[in-house]
Amino acid sequence: MATKPDNTGAFRKYVVEFLGTFFLVITICMMEAGSMGQFAPIATGGMLLALMYSGFHISGGHFNPAVSLATYLRGKLNSGDLLPYIVSQFIGGTLAAMLAGFLLNSTGAAAPSPKVLDIVPSLIAELLGTILFVYVFLNLTTIKKTAGNIYYGVALGFTFMAVMFAFSDISGGAFNPAIGLGITMANITSWETIWVFPLANFVGGVLAAFLSQFVNGPEA
Amino acid sequence: MATKPDNTGAFRKYVVEFLGTFFLVITICMMEAGSMGQFAPIATGGMLLALMYSGFHISGGHFNPAVSLATYLRGKLNSGDLLPYIVSQFIGGTLAAMLAGFLLNSTGAAAPSPKVLDIVPSLIAELLGTILFVYVFLNLTTIKKTAGNIYYGVALGFTFMAVMFAFSDISGGAFNPAIGLGITMANITSWETIWVFPLANFVGGVLAAFLSQFVNGPEA
Amino acid sequence: MATKPDNTGAFRKYVVEFLGTFFLVITICMMEAGSMGQFAPIATGGMLLALMYSGFHISGGHFNPAVSLATYLRGKLNSGDLLPYIVSQFIGGTLAAMLAGFLLNSTGAAAPSPKVLDIVPSLIAELLGTILFVYVFLNLTTIKKTAGNIYYGVALGFTFMAVMFAFSDISGGAFNPAIGLGITMANITSWETIWVFPLANFVGGVLAAFLSQFVNGPEA
Amino acid sequence: MATKPDNTGAFRKYVVEFLGTFFLVITICMMEAGSMGQFAPIATGGMLLALMYSGFHISGGHFNPAVSLATYLRGKLNSGDLLPYIVSQFIGGTLAAMLAGFLLNSTGAAAPSPKVLDIVPSLIAELLGTILFVYVFLNLTTIKKTAGNIYYGVALGFTFMAVMFAFSDISGGAFNPAIGLGITMANITSWETIWVFPLANFVGGVLAAFLSQFVNGPEA
Repeated sequence: MATKPDNTGAFRKYVVEFLGTFFLVITICMMEAGSMGQFAPIATGGMLLALMYSGFHISGGHFNPAVSLATYLRGKLNSGDLLPYIVSQFIGGTLAAMLAGFLLNSTGAAAPSPKVLDIVPSLIAELLGTILFVYVFLNLTTIKKTAGNIYYGVALGFTFMAVMFAFSDISGGAFNPAIGLGITMANITSWETIWVFPLANFVGGVLAAFLSQFVNGPEA
Repeated sequence: MATKPDNTGAFRKYVVEFLGTFFLVITICMMEAGSMGQFAPIATGGMLLALMYSGFHISGGHFNPAVSLATYLRGKLNSGDLLPYIVSQFIGGTLAAMLAGFLLNSTGAAAPSPKVLDIVPSLIAELLGTILFVYVFLNLTTIKKTAGNIYYGVALGFTFMAVMFAFSDISGGAFNPAIGLGITMANITSWETIWVFPLANFVGGVLAAFLSQFVNGPEA
Repeated sequence: MATKPDNTGAFRKYVVEFLGTFFLVITICMMEAGSMGQFAPIATGGMLLALMYSGFHISGGHFNPAVSLATYLRGKLNSGDLLPYIVSQFIGGTLAAMLAGFLLNSTGAAAPSPKVLDIVPSLIAELLGTILFVYVFLNLTTIKKTAGNIYYGVALGFTFMAVMFAFSDISGGAFNPAIGLGITMANITSWETIWVFPLANFVGGVLAAFLSQFVNGPEA
Repeated sequence: MATKPDNTGAFRKYVVEFLGTFFLVITICMMEAGSMGQFAPIATGGMLLALMYSGFHISGGHFNPAVSLATYLRGKLNSGDLLPYIVSQFIGGTLAAMLAGFLLNSTGAAAPSPKVLDIVPSLIAELLGTILFVYVFLNLTTIKKTAGNIYYGVALGFTFMAVMFAFSDISGGAFNPAIGLGITMANITSWETIWVFPLANFVGGVLAAFLSQFVNGPEA
């Protein structure tokens, strides 16, 4: 008699994506509005490193709708998982932003006044940061020559830290539409210009998929 | 003729747990009250990384009563070791806080005035931070799919750094009842609200044990 | 029938070198002129770490004309690749400095007034930093005893961070002629003293090649 | 006919120890007196990480007389190498401090006024920091259970960073007699109390050798 199949496998992956995006967004929101704002890229990069290593073996460690889209385009995510991944990520980010708002409110700190993004520079900054992040992600998780490497978590944590340091003065520093929504809900960036994030991040993810495929060659 | 058995094996593990918690707590106390307070999460995360790599092969590298409880619940710590581990950790943390007090006093720096925690936000912050830290710990040290990995130390050092950055404005940032006692003894947080730490940290550890078991599935 | 040969192999390597130098230089330019300037070495070192891990399997991960020259001298880069590598790196750095100028201009921040380098100290600082960086690079990527190691990216990221922290007060902190050109274009250092970078960096790379060969012995 | 034997083997090790201590001490001197002093522990820890990974396969990566003494006591350094290692380290540190003095002088920055150490707290701080650092070093480089590990460089870089963060307010933060001499020559700490470093560091190294042997058990 066959053992009972484990039907919770897919659901467990979605929980990991939910949890990861939750902790990523709550970290960035708490840092940007807290007393150690200059360290936000280090805290967020460190959190991503930890989430990658603790969740990669279950869900692949996306925590970012642009990464899920690019991974799907590279043929490494089942089409049936794409939408649930993205939905889980947005739910995680939304809850995180709400909880961060509650916690920050309790400290009595003045709410930050939301930054209205300068459109063209912000589109460029978000596009560049997302292209690099997704390019590194794909080069380390979908390519034969790097298959089985164990430095993906360190590399991606430091990639995110570096692009956030380089570009957050310009665009707020999301490189991830779930983070873009989260920092908008937390009044770090303005609702007026929220469309910059999904546009630049999804286009960046698609371009990164082509770029990674090109530089790794036809047999990768 | 049989060689003389090594009866010091268990004791050696307790010494490693004592030493680790001592150095973790003295680092956090010296940093929070010193001239580079904003770097406290980096220093403490770095110290934890070092302690994990130097002690994991002997004691499992807990240095945290909530981790020992959760590891026991996951069946990876003998019941006979649970209490000695926790006692060793609290002794280490207590001695560290006393010695930090002596060293800081010698610098003539004004003693910090202890922070009285805001109960609900602090419980949430300590709970979230402990859940994440113990979840990462269990995912990397008790699961078949990650067995033998060598990135556990990097991942846990950066996890601690990240939760301390995100939540220490709210709760002081312990995520570990031995650290909670230590920072209270060092006048960083108030004796009035010290119960927040053991409550949130032990409950967080138990929840993390269930969460890690769930997301890793029935065969993990 | 033979499969069509892949003639894009060499070009793909040049693209990786172009991209890497582009992201290295844009990070350093954005940081030096932005609101988190003190973190420039951490951001740049983290970026280099990420670029090494994502590009090493394709191009060898140079992103620095002095590294390409030294690697060629050690017999690990084909002579036909040396010039295209260096050209790709300078194009990447130049475009990055131009784009950084556009992005920084959009923030309305005052342009930094370019630092005129003090010649002798700057030559020493650039020479020392380049020797160390290239020495570490060669010891970890061209020596039998360390062949196949996976820590090269971490080691080189932290090497660059450390020399930039130690010496950027003196020389601006390039250790790479493409970065030297980039920070000059971005008004961080002065055009008057730009010759310091190629002179000190290429001489440093050559000295590092001899030093690495010497300390690793005749059979390395 | 036999190939000519390589008589430069020992000398090459001394060169690596000289170079490593030189770069360690110049980093710490430039940082403590420069514009980014709060980052001195990060820069120095990162430099040590890089030096460990680039030099371990040649000399064992000591760069610290207290480490060489402890490694000798644990039977992992030939007695004939002990003195040359220590001499090479002190020469490297001395030259580094002199060169740092020249470079710093050129910036026109006011020389720091040397800190006169408070004896008892400084002895305790240097003793604790050295014990931990050497204990981690020995646990990761001389023990069977951790033989062949590749995380030694990350662990030791972060250990040094953490103890320097925790204790440099008290003692200046050497944990290494060659650094102690270097920071004294660079006017960071006073000549009056220079004896604190060799006393605390060598005693700390000896205690760490016993501690590491004890916790790793009789068969380690």
